[in-house]
Amino acid sequence: VFGRGGAAAQVSGAAWLQAMLDFEGALARANAACGLIPGAAAETISAACSASRLDAGAIGSSAASGGNPAIPLVAELRAKLPSDVAGWVHFGATSQDVIDTAAMLVARRAIAPILGDALRAASACATLADAHRDTIMIGRTLLQQAVPTVFGLKAAGWLAGIVRARRELVRALESAIALQFGGAAGTLASLGDDGLRVAASLAAELALTEPALPWHTERTRIVGLVAALGLLTGALGKVARDVVLLSQNEVAEVRSGQGGSSTMPHKRNPVPSVAVLACAQRLPGVVASLSLVHEHERAAGAWHAEWEPFSEAIRVTGSAAAWAAEMLEELEVDGEQMRRNLSMAGDGVMAESLVMTLAARVGLARARALVEEALGSGDVRTALAVGLAGELSPEELDAALSPERYLGSAHAFIDRALAEYGAGA
Amino acid sequence: VFGRGGAAAQVSGAAWLQAMLDFEGALARANAACGLIPGAAAETISAACSASRLDAGAIGSSAASGGNPAIPLVAELRAKLPSDVAGWVHFGATSQDVIDTAAMLVARRAIAPILGDALRAASACATLADAHRDTIMIGRTLLQQAVPTVFGLKAAGWLAGIVRARRELVRALESAIALQFGGAAGTLASLGDDGLRVAASLAAELALTEPALPWHTERTRIVGLVAALGLLTGALGKVARDVVLLSQNEVAEVRSGQGGSSTMPHKRNPVPSVAVLACAQRLPGVVASLSLVHEHERAAGAWHAEWEPFSEAIRVTGSAAAWAAEMLEELEVDGEQMRRNLSMAGDGVMAESLVMTLAARVGLARARALVEEALGSGDVRTALAVGLAGELSPEELDAALSPERYLGSAHAFIDRALAEYGAGA
Amino acid sequence: VFGRGGAAAQVSGAAWLQAMLDFEGALARANAACGLIPGAAAETISAACSASRLDAGAIGSSAASGGNPAIPLVAELRAKLPSDVAGWVHFGATSQDVIDTAAMLVARRAIAPILGDALRAASACATLADAHRDTIMIGRTLLQQAVPTVFGLKAAGWLAGIVRARRELVRALESAIALQFGGAAGTLASLGDDGLRVAASLAAELALTEPALPWHTERTRIVGLVAALGLLTGALGKVARDVVLLSQNEVAEVRSGQGGSSTMPHKRNPVPSVAVLACAQRLPGVVASLSLVHEHERAAGAWHAEWEPFSEAIRVTGSAAAWAAEMLEELEVDGEQMRRNLSMAGDGVMAESLVMTLAARVGLARARALVEEALGSGDVRTALAVGLAGELSPEELDAALSPERYLGSAHAFIDRALAEYGAGA
Amino acid sequence: VFGRGGAAAQVSGAAWLQAMLDFEGALARANAACGLIPGAAAETISAACSASRLDAGAIGSSAASGGNPAIPLVAELRAKLPSDVAGWVHFGATSQDVIDTAAMLVARRAIAPILGDALRAASACATLADAHRDTIMIGRTLLQQAVPTVFGLKAAGWLAGIVRARRELVRALESAIALQFGGAAGTLASLGDDGLRVAASLAAELALTEPALPWHTERTRIVGLVAALGLLTGALGKVARDVVLLSQNEVAEVRSGQGGSSTMPHKRNPVPSVAVLACAQRLPGVVASLSLVHEHERAAGAWHAEWEPFSEAIRVTGSAAAWAAEMLEELEVDGEQMRRNLSMAGDGVMAESLVMTLAARVGLARARALVEEALGSGDVRTALAVGLAGELSPEELDAALSPERYLGSAHAFIDRALAEYGAGA
Repeated sequence: VFGRGGAAAQVSGAAWLQAMLDFEGALARANAACGLIPGAAAETISAACSASRLDAGAIGSSAASGGNPAIPLVAELRAKLPSDVAGWVHFGATSQDVIDTAAMLVARRAIAPILGDALRAASACATLADAHRDTIMIGRTLLQQAVPTVFGLKAAGWLAGIVRARRELVRALESAIALQFGGAAGTLASLGDDGLRVAASLAAELALTEPALPWHTERTRIVGLVAALGLLTGALGKVARDVVLLSQNEVAEVRSGQGGSSTMPHKRNPVPSVAVLACAQRLPGVVASLSLVHEHERAAGAWHAEWEPFSEAIRVTGSAAAWAAEMLEELEVDGEQMRRNLSMAGDGVMAESLVMTLAARVGLARARALVEEALGSGDVRTALAVGLAGELSPEELDAALSPERYLGSAHAFIDRALAEYGAGA
Repeated sequence: VFGRGGAAAQVSGAAWLQAMLDFEGALARANAACGLIPGAAAETISAACSASRLDAGAIGSSAASGGNPAIPLVAELRAKLPSDVAGWVHFGATSQDVIDTAAMLVARRAIAPILGDALRAASACATLADAHRDTIMIGRTLLQQAVPTVFGLKAAGWLAGIVRARRELVRALESAIALQFGGAAGTLASLGDDGLRVAASLAAELALTEPALPWHTERTRIVGLVAALGLLTGALGKVARDVVLLSQNEVAEVRSGQGGSSTMPHKRNPVPSVAVLACAQRLPGVVASLSLVHEHERAAGAWHAEWEPFSEAIRVTGSAAAWAAEMLEELEVDGEQMRRNLSMAGDGVMAESLVMTLAARVGLARARALVEEALGSGDVRTALAVGLAGELSPEELDAALSPERYLGSAHAFIDRALAEYGAGA
Repeated sequence: VFGRGGAAAQVSGAAWLQAMLDFEGALARANAACGLIPGAAAETISAACSASRLDAGAIGSSAASGGNPAIPLVAELRAKLPSDVAGWVHFGATSQDVIDTAAMLVARRAIAPILGDALRAASACATLADAHRDTIMIGRTLLQQAVPTVFGLKAAGWLAGIVRARRELVRALESAIALQFGGAAGTLASLGDDGLRVAASLAAELALTEPALPWHTERTRIVGLVAALGLLTGALGKVARDVVLLSQNEVAEVRSGQGGSSTMPHKRNPVPSVAVLACAQRLPGVVASLSLVHEHERAAGAWHAEWEPFSEAIRVTGSAAAWAAEMLEELEVDGEQMRRNLSMAGDGVMAESLVMTLAARVGLARARALVEEALGSGDVRTALAVGLAGELSPEELDAALSPERYLGSAHAFIDRALAEYGAGA
Repeated sequence: VFGRGGAAAQVSGAAWLQAMLDFEGALARANAACGLIPGAAAETISAACSASRLDAGAIGSSAASGGNPAIPLVAELRAKLPSDVAGWVHFGATSQDVIDTAAMLVARRAIAPILGDALRAASACATLADAHRDTIMIGRTLLQQAVPTVFGLKAAGWLAGIVRARRELVRALESAIALQFGGAAGTLASLGDDGLRVAASLAAELALTEPALPWHTERTRIVGLVAALGLLTGALGKVARDVVLLSQNEVAEVRSGQGGSSTMPHKRNPVPSVAVLACAQRLPGVVASLSLVHEHERAAGAWHAEWEPFSEAIRVTGSAAAWAAEMLEELEVDGEQMRRNLSMAGDGVMAESLVMTLAARVGLARARALVEEALGSGDVRTALAVGLAGELSPEELDAALSPERYLGSAHAFIDRALAEYGAGA
């Protein structure tokens, strides 16, 4: 349920290991470029930095005792290299430089497919919004029938949420994605006067932004990024909740999923939406498990507590986006059933419309009273005819009771949402 | 503890009431400007929209039974007005239009003093960063002494966090702050063809952005804003944690707060930092209590659950910013004690420096071995002199053991943080 | 929405103030009983410990600067007393003793009405479970029609959840509710050898458990209690979600609430259930905002961060219980509509029943195949008659397609839930 | 960091798979015992229910499309069996019966080693509490030196927290651990009149409690258990925070961990405590990610969202307990350094003691004034001697300034905590 889409593979143990090795390789090249280590050593190191050549299991189990995976990674890598080269591995860096930079590489690689799936979901919403601008249905507030709307506007609302959340994620990624390189206490002291040169070179090697200063204990990048993932999963969760509700047999306005049940062959479970909802249920707690309160130059616990939720937020959001895209692309909309449900709702949902029409003739207060009375009587048309004594022609009454005539700015709102999507996504 | 600063007053019951009335007044003027209601009625309504003229208590208690405070507010307001005017109150709007727009007005009014206090905090950090660029101290990782740094760099790190978080909050507010106006189901149906004109006029009246479409159940604005408040509180919490730790009697590198204790007159409690930490402890849970999964055209519960956390996030963040500004402005830094703690740390913290110096002469591997052995011997200098057999002059050894010579890019990082602050805040 | 029921008044500022004064009064009496302070002084102090006699506002504003409300409370109280008595106020106690013990008193007073309302809710569920043991309806999984059940079983499930959660809350309260009394660092040093005697007397005065040792930084009591509040709110939230779903116009199996809408007079909003859902949305974040990680002998922030969420959890749970009790007591169940929805579901929901009946004749595999085919054909009876070639009589087929005959252990489960309720609540 | 201890292996994919198979095997035996399926079929099924014989990977990937892992598990299991036996697999059960019951089996298996490690941690605390009842040290509030205490009392406080939290976990497990068996909609309809008999037999087979009724959407068991895991992790986190703080080089009252750093060979990082703190940081968010609001007879998302956090809470708590036990068993306590820090604190920390001694002679008010003045003067003894004009003998003054004489009930509290541990754990 939570491993769908392309992001999951990018936050696997192997992907993290490779990202850390990418840092070590790039660091060696940057150090060589700045003349701090021999060029040949850098080449040898760089060539060795492939996850497939290391023992991921051994690194994983050693990580526990040292408190982080960078220490055994460096040890394993050095053990594979000639002794005169081994010493140049990790030159100038601290464990957190490796792991934080790897997190950024992982994020960039994993968020790309998420953005792709979110775009697919948005595109499917845009198609629905455009196709269903005249598919009239009942709007529902507090899960009660309220006044008419069109399905296209509902889809436009979904679209607006996904577009906004996706844009926030793009922005959060751009804002977050920076090299981490500070050495033991964030001064790059072991590189003497060459720190900034190596940092610039390293950032260029990895195509990462060079931050003003190391951010070992300034975690707004991490938390901001995870919060943005939460926004997207939530925006998709809103769509999924609507779809699950519209898919209820008693509502039946959309159909989604193939489902299947171990005991009930007749059921069509809205599995994709259920999966998205499960993802949306997870994220707020994941966001809340991160702390920005990191002590001094490296936190005693708050940093270590980031690693799993960081991957989890990416994986779960990726899954939500993949499920949502699939669900929206395959969504079947039953306009006739929407019309049926609207009709069953009766004249009550046109009360506001009637009041507005009558207000122009008899004033707002009397209009409200007349409509309330008429609705209470059961037969709205007759009651109003009597109460109004002919002030409204039958045609005017029909118009006031016609949902199609009571859609206000729905079309304009759809157009705006589509325009925003066209411009922004 | 949680009501410090100017934001608290802006999220009080009275402030919310006034913000809702501001909406109703502006709506009347916008409706009149568009020719939908009489200009005189709009003027009368507008004049009546003052919180001091309504019974806030009565509205509060009625809010419970109707499920939201807009219904009794409108009723109270209408009851104060002549009957031919009363009907024009709230014309075209739904409860959520009033409350969501009021939330935006509240946010704008309350976040202004928060940004001011955050700027004061940032400014104090900048002053500290600049003043203490040569105040040498020990850097600490996992709360253990690591390698030397300067207090100015620590303050620069605080600065960078506050500047980033403040900028995120500014951006989140700009992104969020939009009119809510959609009527019963988001179509503005009761305004017929005039919906968009009224919306534009209303947005202009309130100086709010006009969104592409209503966002009754598209809550990325709300959640994004609260998440940004969380970022700022957390960034301030990082500073406070450092200050509390540095204020420990055994560390004593800074002094903060006047404190006072009911039983211990000698104590100087770091109350401002403790208050900031308490605020930072609160926010993640507040953020997590919000849901983006709002059903159909108005949510059954998730919307109602937003109101208190929204105010709470603002109030607590405002308190954190006010406490942090005060704390940072009055922070006393004891450079001599920093130097003393560094000296007590002994030569061990210069191990990395020694290795780097020796590596150039004897290779990295032998350098590491020599230093490790020398540190184990207790008398580093003698041990190294023997082990190196004169390869390093006493002056060179002194330099390698001198913290002032092992600060790498600390100054450059401080300059960069100050530049970023100057440009961005 | 969040202030319904009797608990809200017990967590108000005035209620907290009185609880703190109750501690101070009882402490004076306990100290006098142990001969540590003059009996007359204790009487004077005791008589002065009334919230109505102190300036709550002044205490509140001073609380901010001292970091907690106990310091200004003691100062205000002393200022009201003769100078030879004033000194005996708060004798032997520390601020946290006052505030933590007050929290316990507040909890006991506030949770009593919560348990009462929860019992009302349970009782209403029991009545529904018993009354509707034969009210047949469709069971729904993933919001899709599954197989038949009875409304009584659904109510029995609600009952079981409320009973369990209520019992957990009773237990958590009993487990938590203990005196806090340790003095400045938890040793009661200022009372010399008399600490335990005073503690015992004080616990007796307040009818609180005397804990093995002070729990200034051992917060399982607080967090366990708040978590139990969360369980109850969640169990009520489950009921509310079901009621909101069953209240949808398209489902219409229950009616609840009077609602009212600012624009739609015809609407009947399920306000009580919506309110309960809003409460349930809040609690997990409130629970998560508490930390058990309190430093040394008094925490620097984590303790202060408890106060508001503690009250909030109580108030919101109290509101949920009051709303839920009211909602359940007034719930209207429409058995005919349940039957209609079940009929509309068609023979598909009896597929499992058919398979089970046929399996006894033709084996499970063939039974499944036959039923699947028959359901696909549209006319299940004819298809099965053909496929079975008379192996099942029309009466047997009717029975297999009759929901009333396919309720399994529903009645037994209802009986068990009622028995558990009778025994346990 | 998060996979230490014996619990991790019990929540692995393989462990879950085996637990589900244990359910299916036991179900077959129970069905046979009740005469519903052939005994030979039950034996064949039972024998096949071994995780090592199924393709876990295939089941995992299929789980995604069906929405839960029970469907492909049943399919895989059936595919391994003769066709006349295959049909009897899963007879009468629904997917949630398998998965929820498996969760209970997983919990029982995984929590056993957690309780073992928590007991080791408690035992180590008891040893420390007893051994250090006279190891005097300074108590600290808000991280500031307050008044003297003994290390034994601090350890007794740790002990009390672990004992309470462990007891809560035992209780929560006992309360939670129940069979799940209700069939498609919780009525056990497919078993006709035999449902309760099969349920009783199945519960006996698995040694699980038989609940009053199925709890498919009554989730207090799950959430209560996870909340109890959170309590234990938090109680351990409190210990770890204290150890990290006491391990600071400037405090140096305890030593813990071997650590190691990729760049600083001299460092001794308190890795076990840091790991425990990381675990404690995680749990509140995990608890908050669970919802009790499950729709109708099976939730659309909230159930699916439980699976990963459930395992995660167990694994992380297990890791915290294992790390904490190791850390506490190996903790080195430096009583001399504690004494040194206390001495450095000076006479200020004895202010309360002085006031209490003087109060008996000169009244509380004058005692406070004298002590405050004396402390301000720098030389407390001389100032007091002058101020008191001989009312206190030098010996009495010495006693009042002697930390050993100002420990109040510390020893008694230690004894109580040890007694509670002896009785309860």
